[in-house]
Amino acid sequence: MITSAVNPKVKQVVLWRDKAKERRQDKVFLAEGPKMFGEAPTPWIREVYLTQTALEKLGQTPGGEEKLKQVRLELVSEEVMNKMADTQTPQGIVTVLRCPNHEPDELLRKENGLFLVLEGLQDPGNLGTIMRTSEGAGVTAVIMDKKTVDIYNPKTIRATMGSIYRVPFVIVEDLQEILQKMRKNGIRSFAAHLSGTTYYTGESFREPTAFLIGNEGNGLSRELSEMADSFIKIPMEGKLESLNAAVAAALLVYEAKRQRSI
Amino acid sequence: MITSAVNPKVKQVVLWRDKAKERRQDKVFLAEGPKMFGEAPTPWIREVYLTQTALEKLGQTPGGEEKLKQVRLELVSEEVMNKMADTQTPQGIVTVLRCPNHEPDELLRKENGLFLVLEGLQDPGNLGTIMRTSEGAGVTAVIMDKKTVDIYNPKTIRATMGSIYRVPFVIVEDLQEILQKMRKNGIRSFAAHLSGTTYYTGESFREPTAFLIGNEGNGLSRELSEMADSFIKIPMEGKLESLNAAVAAALLVYEAKRQRSI
Repeated sequence: MITSAVNPKVKQVVLWRDKAKERRQDKVFLAEGPKMFGEAPTPWIREVYLTQTALEKLGQTPGGEEKLKQVRLELVSEEVMNKMADTQTPQGIVTVLRCPNHEPDELLRKENGLFLVLEGLQDPGNLGTIMRTSEGAGVTAVIMDKKTVDIYNPKTIRATMGSIYRVPFVIVEDLQEILQKMRKNGIRSFAAHLSGTTYYTGESFREPTAFLIGNEGNGLSRELSEMADSFIKIPMEGKLESLNAAVAAALLVYEAKRQRSI
Repeated sequence: MITSAVNPKVKQVVLWRDKAKERRQDKVFLAEGPKMFGEAPTPWIREVYLTQTALEKLGQTPGGEEKLKQVRLELVSEEVMNKMADTQTPQGIVTVLRCPNHEPDELLRKENGLFLVLEGLQDPGNLGTIMRTSEGAGVTAVIMDKKTVDIYNPKTIRATMGSIYRVPFVIVEDLQEILQKMRKNGIRSFAAHLSGTTYYTGESFREPTAFLIGNEGNGLSRELSEMADSFIKIPMEGKLESLNAAVAAALLVYEAKRQRSI
């Protein structure tokens, strides 16, 4: 059992937790709590740090004991767990996971795809909520640029509620290139934009569709929105300038889901 | 100009910022930044604290000078502003506002109303986002219980993006009583619930409608959901147990908006 907070492994976990650069370099991310361990695909799991109490509890959950046998475990004291955990009330288990690696070209070829393209989103909670909603709406993949907040940020991971394991996503250098590829693949792209003339409920999303969502403060860049096939608008009453980015994304993907299920 | 951080007025503002109890007692709340000052209804404004720089900038905005003349101003030094402000990058102006006071009975009598009823919501960001979305969707009023997070929490106020000034809301002791009154007023209530059998897109929200949204972790209480006229479900793919509360509320009120605009 690790009982020292200056143990090199503990120090490494803290670095992964706090530094996006360290995570990127080692291609790992952290997930806290028994639920995030339980839902993690076993091949993604690199190692697991947990307290004796968490080990005993997990061993009693359905499938828990079996899963624990398949991964590399490291027992830590409660004090060390408090040091490693990001949350104020640690849940006794931190899972270290390998970052998934999806091929954009493969995702774009999926049948009747439904995509979200995120440009420069800044709020970790919004990104996590978008992943969660994407799972619910059956989104094929979420594609984001490098200006978007780090998806492996502990706050984002928490907000995904496990969707990070199930919704394919890619982080790309160049979203314009993705839009070109989408056009070649017959995917129609819609920019959620204030200057849109058609309401989103007046367009058909039954064919392969991508929705472009911009930064919370500034919206989509001109360069990217000019590449979209259509501009769409979400109607707003009152004096509002825009909706929250995660809300806008949810309305669009669920409208696609509604149309596709009729 | 106030230059001392121990000035009693400054200490009072800090108390209002940090303590829900102090806000409740004095029936005030705070809003930061020039946008939140500019959009505030003048009769709500009790006093305004701002720096010389903010005063000059505001005087040059459309309507800014006139509005400043109608309210009680107090100049403060940059240091004092840093002390008062809740945000890490203060915007030079803090507005102290009187809490609005709406009559539930009056709101329920509005023609073809669209209501959100919130039970025990815990996340300030979610509540703020719900207020923002409610403005966009043209919600008549948001009704919440006292277990719901304080709407006057600075984080909630920020997330409303000014909607707090424009969407009527009430905080009530007893939501069950509200549901009874709704029934008498011909408002049909829908509980967003996992055990719902009808999808939300399969119900009509053209008549007076209320949506019940529960706590993020536990959903609606049995007592309240049993009083709803119908249970509805938002379809979800994947292994998700629920959507984010603000996302669920948005999908429901925007579906009502969509149906009412056809």
